[in-house]
Amino acid sequence: MDGAPSPASPAGLSAYVVVSQLLGLTLLVTTGAWLGRYRGGVAWHSPLQFNVHPLCMVLGMVFLQGDALLVYRVFRHEAKRSTKALHALLHGLALVIALVGIVAVFEFHQTKGIPDMYSLHSWCGMAAFVLYLLQWLLGCGFFLLPGASFSLRGRYKPQHVFFGLALFALSIAVCLLGITEMLLFNIRDSYSHFVSEGVLANTLGVLLVAFGLVVGYVLTRDDWKRPPLAEELALSMDFKTLTEGESPGGGSQ
Amino acid sequence: MDGAPSPASPAGLSAYVVVSQLLGLTLLVTTGAWLGRYRGGVAWHSPLQFNVHPLCMVLGMVFLQGDALLVYRVFRHEAKRSTKALHALLHGLALVIALVGIVAVFEFHQTKGIPDMYSLHSWCGMAAFVLYLLQWLLGCGFFLLPGASFSLRGRYKPQHVFFGLALFALSIAVCLLGITEMLLFNIRDSYSHFVSEGVLANTLGVLLVAFGLVVGYVLTRDDWKRPPLAEELALSMDFKTLTEGESPGGGSQ
Repeated sequence: MDGAPSPASPAGLSAYVVVSQLLGLTLLVTTGAWLGRYRGGVAWHSPLQFNVHPLCMVLGMVFLQGDALLVYRVFRHEAKRSTKALHALLHGLALVIALVGIVAVFEFHQTKGIPDMYSLHSWCGMAAFVLYLLQWLLGCGFFLLPGASFSLRGRYKPQHVFFGLALFALSIAVCLLGITEMLLFNIRDSYSHFVSEGVLANTLGVLLVAFGLVVGYVLTRDDWKRPPLAEELALSMDFKTLTEGESPGGGSQ
Repeated sequence: MDGAPSPASPAGLSAYVVVSQLLGLTLLVTTGAWLGRYRGGVAWHSPLQFNVHPLCMVLGMVFLQGDALLVYRVFRHEAKRSTKALHALLHGLALVIALVGIVAVFEFHQTKGIPDMYSLHSWCGMAAFVLYLLQWLLGCGFFLLPGASFSLRGRYKPQHVFFGLALFALSIAVCLLGITEMLLFNIRDSYSHFVSEGVLANTLGVLLVAFGLVVGYVLTRDDWKRPPLAEELALSMDFKTLTEGESPGGGSQ
């Protein structure tokens, strides 16, 4: 793409990415199996509306969020502008799906007369969602819109990267809390007898942790970071020399 | 120490470390307040033996583990050997305290006839403890004992750093699961009415996340990493030149 050379990815990176995607798909299937086999399935206008919540949160706040974080490692030889757009798009999709999941549980609570926002799961979950939305808005403002100066982008980028990974970890922790809540509300008395629903849901929790570990490992390995393309380096030097403190007009993140 | 110069710490680092310690102490006090005010306090040979578990896990697997991770940032101008010994010592202490907490809950279960290891909290918690012990043993083997070669240490170090931070994050997530379990077992019916015990325990959860975020931020900021002392650089070059593939006899981590 854009005439850039396409050297091979670093040794091992592709294998880790494949494992992450297999884990991601497995955790989606496991969530579906849990809800389908033990919780009656998923439907919007019915008592099953609650089940939309775990499905959307695992899909949006874990799988899509994780994949959005991985795009700079996977598409390492594509033009940065395209990769950045995909990164923002996947996070945006994750946010929309998560919002559907949140609306589902609030509507379910309203129908059943259950109070909102009393549990640690809801406190941490709402914090994770609001901060994730804020992170997305700030990311678009700093890196996609032309307003921010080169030096401002450079100063914000490490914060964006840290909070991106921290919010991903928090989202997984919130899913684990949700699994525990669901099990203790639904099978409190039989959970300690290792009934199959409990074992399946625990396995989903372990898969979520494993997905987080593999994605986190790929993202934090120094030698797997996306190298700047030759034209980005040249452009970056030009911008730095000519417009320090000015906007580079949609330059590098 | 050791004649090394003692330049000031990077701007902001000290403030973040102070905030982390204030958060750490606050979460210990909050745990104590929860157990003391709402759960009857802590005692070994009594029905209160369970309460030893959350106290030990927050102290060992969160506060001490977090502080052990911070020593390379806090004691940045001390000799590496002393800092490394303190790092290993604090992690070792954390492991012993966590072991006491684990024995407490197993003995409590035995007394009450409650099955062990059925919940997601117990699965993730046991995995975190066993992997933390393994990480400590590997760390001592690679970096404290004289057997490992310079190049082997170099290759293992990034894994040690990644898994150190990942296990710290997992430990915090496991504590959040433990809080949720305790609340749903003890105040399931009143939790949704925002009773003070629920609000206090939720606040403890938020403090745990905040402690993790501050410690994680300090550890991952590139410009806050411990710079090698002048004599370490010289020694490292000598070792690299003279003994590549041989043991540096207790050199740098």
